[in-house]
Amino acid sequence: MLIEKEYISPAAQQYIDSNPLAGQAYREISCSIESVTTLGDNVFVINNSKKNCNGVVPIKENCYSMLEEQFSWFREKPLKYLREEALKGGPIDVYKEFIEGEQICRVGLEFETGNISSSHRSMNKLLLGIIKNELNLAVLMMPVKKLSYYLTDRVSNFEELEPYFILLNNSPVIVIGFDAEEYSSNVPLLAKGSDGMSDRAIHRWRDPQ
Amino acid sequence: MLIEKEYISPAAQQYIDSNPLAGQAYREISCSIESVTTLGDNVFVINNSKKNCNGVVPIKENCYSMLEEQFSWFREKPLKYLREEALKGGPIDVYKEFIEGEQICRVGLEFETGNISSSHRSMNKLLLGIIKNELNLAVLMMPVKKLSYYLTDRVSNFEELEPYFILLNNSPVIVIGFDAEEYSSNVPLLAKGSDGMSDRAIHRWRDPQ
Repeated sequence: MLIEKEYISPAAQQYIDSNPLAGQAYREISCSIESVTTLGDNVFVINNSKKNCNGVVPIKENCYSMLEEQFSWFREKPLKYLREEALKGGPIDVYKEFIEGEQICRVGLEFETGNISSSHRSMNKLLLGIIKNELNLAVLMMPVKKLSYYLTDRVSNFEELEPYFILLNNSPVIVIGFDAEEYSSNVPLLAKGSDGMSDRAIHRWRDPQ
Repeated sequence: MLIEKEYISPAAQQYIDSNPLAGQAYREISCSIESVTTLGDNVFVINNSKKNCNGVVPIKENCYSMLEEQFSWFREKPLKYLREEALKGGPIDVYKEFIEGEQICRVGLEFETGNISSSHRSMNKLLLGIIKNELNLAVLMMPVKKLSYYLTDRVSNFEELEPYFILLNNSPVIVIGFDAEEYSSNVPLLAKGSDGMSDRAIHRWRDPQ
């Protein structure tokens, strides 16, 4: 996949430029989406035979596999605030703590596969993590509009959420809009729902005892 | 209806305490939801014969009628930012400009009838209006959890969104959680969807020429 559009807030830019741990986090995330390629190819080719013909979950799963297996990220990290104070709300999709000496950089990522309302919730959950000082950097990943046309109906896209990025201006947040390198009607469709997903054991986050 | 729970951000509190126009806006909004009563009664009695048995739209419509007809609010006010810059995104549900001499207080209100994701979008739309200086005060209205049990399935409630109110701390925003005064299995159900809604002509906002 190709990172076609990107929003990097001023705080996020300054953080990844000045802090090697944050820079490393950003490189791992970029690499994980760029590494999603069509089997036996070194680019990603999406089937464009008709509108909404592909599922989006296989793209997410491939990106998460790379983060987990290559870079040791964890899945489903609950925010302490939501779990212990609010007593409601789901976990952050993918999470890693980058540690060197006394320094720690905690990074949360959500890969959006729902509709536009759902993207607002993901964005707000990441902002909560930052405000509550449980995340130092947050990343939201979504397809660009051009690609989303061939993905699950009503999946949200980068351009659709873009007017709201000004709400992120003062927080260390990055939004990545990815696209396929090529479009063709001669490649297999991506399965919808969880059809065809392997039963891969995910690396679930466990709080230290 | 009863205002059972309320979040008033510090900025909103200071604004309604110190600015008579903002104070008036807040009184009109409170009055509009409190005036929703069961026909022929001076309180609101909700049918509690089973889970999800009532629609929520009739409550919203009654509240909006009061705002429009009694207090001259307008429906469907587009944010200039979304319409002219972003070229996407829907209008604010209900809107009024309170003007006295040189002073103006622009107030937007959204009555939430969707699921929790949809509430996040409403909240973010109101925040956009504030950041872009198109709103001076924003109000989000939703049922409390106890009442929502008897309303449309999965309609969001005050308590469900409450963990996210810290995202509103620095903005002039109020969230109102309303409840019925009484619960009884001997009152008519509220229609679901738009069934039984009158064809009332709404007072749609028109930008000055």
